[in-house]
Amino acid sequence: MAPRIVDNHTTDSYRVNVIGTNSPVLVVLEGDQHPPRMGPIEASALVRYTREDGLAEALRGADALFLYDFQSSALRDVWSSADRLRWVHVAAAGVDPVLFPELRESQVVLTNSRGVFDGPIAEYVLGLILALAKDFAHTIELQRQGRWLHRESERIAGARVLVVGTGPIGRAIARMLRAVGMQVTGMGRRSQADDPDFGTVRPSAELVRWLPEMDYVVAVAPLTEQTKGMFDEAAFAAMKPGARFVNVGRGALMDTSALVAALRDGRLAGAALDVFETEPLPDDSPLWNLPGVLVSPHMSGDFVGWRDTLVEVFADNFQRWQTGRPLRNVVDKQLGYVPSRGV
Amino acid sequence: MAPRIVDNHTTDSYRVNVIGTNSPVLVVLEGDQHPPRMGPIEASALVRYTREDGLAEALRGADALFLYDFQSSALRDVWSSADRLRWVHVAAAGVDPVLFPELRESQVVLTNSRGVFDGPIAEYVLGLILALAKDFAHTIELQRQGRWLHRESERIAGARVLVVGTGPIGRAIARMLRAVGMQVTGMGRRSQADDPDFGTVRPSAELVRWLPEMDYVVAVAPLTEQTKGMFDEAAFAAMKPGARFVNVGRGALMDTSALVAALRDGRLAGAALDVFETEPLPDDSPLWNLPGVLVSPHMSGDFVGWRDTLVEVFADNFQRWQTGRPLRNVVDKQLGYVPSRGV
Repeated sequence: MAPRIVDNHTTDSYRVNVIGTNSPVLVVLEGDQHPPRMGPIEASALVRYTREDGLAEALRGADALFLYDFQSSALRDVWSSADRLRWVHVAAAGVDPVLFPELRESQVVLTNSRGVFDGPIAEYVLGLILALAKDFAHTIELQRQGRWLHRESERIAGARVLVVGTGPIGRAIARMLRAVGMQVTGMGRRSQADDPDFGTVRPSAELVRWLPEMDYVVAVAPLTEQTKGMFDEAAFAAMKPGARFVNVGRGALMDTSALVAALRDGRLAGAALDVFETEPLPDDSPLWNLPGVLVSPHMSGDFVGWRDTLVEVFADNFQRWQTGRPLRNVVDKQLGYVPSRGV
Repeated sequence: MAPRIVDNHTTDSYRVNVIGTNSPVLVVLEGDQHPPRMGPIEASALVRYTREDGLAEALRGADALFLYDFQSSALRDVWSSADRLRWVHVAAAGVDPVLFPELRESQVVLTNSRGVFDGPIAEYVLGLILALAKDFAHTIELQRQGRWLHRESERIAGARVLVVGTGPIGRAIARMLRAVGMQVTGMGRRSQADDPDFGTVRPSAELVRWLPEMDYVVAVAPLTEQTKGMFDEAAFAAMKPGARFVNVGRGALMDTSALVAALRDGRLAGAALDVFETEPLPDDSPLWNLPGVLVSPHMSGDFVGWRDTLVEVFADNFQRWQTGRPLRNVVDKQLGYVPSRGV
């Protein structure tokens, strides 16, 4: 499918603003939906909207790429068409789908949507932990059956939780869980004694050492070569019997087979999974109906209004880019995420 | 059924401690379960365990009554047998089942289990609000069907919530909801400008005035003549379209038919109900399967260990009673609850 070009010099454009002949060419990779609120950007750039199958053609001569379809990994396959590309912006926090060697080693600047999902995901994680502790899935199933069955449920106050990932989403999660009385420990690349959000941060290398103490483990690390598969058989074996695993980061942080085994043999009491190694979760995955497991379709951060906010974040960076100011949320392509300032 | 008497002078007692002949006689109204950890009490009193059908016989000559079966209203029917009763302790926060005129007008002191449920119910309410905002019931139903269907969900940060009931449970709820970024207003008998937990407390007489501003309304008031049916047709009609109603107080605070109508006509987006006018909720109640409604079986405060804690609270008061010290949690029988100190 050929890209649909919104050129402000033509009559079929959204806007009739006359832009200079040196206006940049922006490619927008659409997903299922057209991004909202693109008017201001269309007023100052030649915008080519495309789906994956038109990406190669659209990229020729393009200066910038907005990966509104943030789950796409199509860029890698058509990288040779990016003959003038200087900037790629991803409408997500995780940039793992575009961290292929050619982009990494290129001069192309990569930015993400850091910040948009912090609060929403923190709320979602707290909701998941409370749903597990209060046994909501069972209550809802009993309601469906019209059965009144009183049970006791668990407190979360005082429960110990390890938040693996010390980026802004992990920090927002930590603040929220501490605010409701949970005992939070962070886990990141470096250890830290007096972290403002976590209190204590343990280094990832010590994962198996700290897992036995935790009632809940929340995976929210970026997916990198270092973090891929970090929740493996040894990790799940090290977890406290009866503990629960929450993944709102990336499915590939965990070895799904090892998780399923740990759940089946009863070592783990449950899990809440919003991300999976393969998405959508395949029909034949045992995760769909393992007792104690909550499956949600990669939606933890996607609050009402998120699409508008994602475009606002891009538009702000686009204006910076056009006016030569420093971009926000520049990804360290070797680390695989936006490094924190000072922490 | 005759009461089972644990008399420390007999060989079938739990303990063989010899107690004085002036030892008090304590009646324990058991429910489905025998209370745990009664040993220390049995060491210093003649304890008569009974169910409802033996209550009249057990009460004759008894000094104190521990309503471990806190939902029972049997005391009213056998009140004339309470020929020496001086103290009734209820293993619950709400004492509405025993607030009948004869007990109210008597010299019998009434105490409750204030404090036990504050934190657990606050966690449960936060969980219910997050379950509603994040659409967990739909997610769980989709999981049951093995369907992957991404949706957007609501933020709770900044949402406005009215907590109706300013006792310790309402206060714990308010603190928790504020800690996660909700805008809380309290509602109690008296208005209050700088309340430490609520910020602002509005008087109950202004219920209909403040309801239109609220995204969530949490009912946690004690059930008294003043609060019975306060959530009636006019109240639900005054609520903001799309708002949600949470009841963890007493079912009789609400007019169930009016709530069902408000849910059916779509004025309310949902409700989370842990208490009902009739419990267990009757099989033919429409609440079981109204969209957006969460039904749980009166369990919001019943954390793992709650039964032990309830007996500990009673045991503490029992020791105070025996040694002539002031009892804790004395209910104002005219108000129908334990008055707050200074607030």
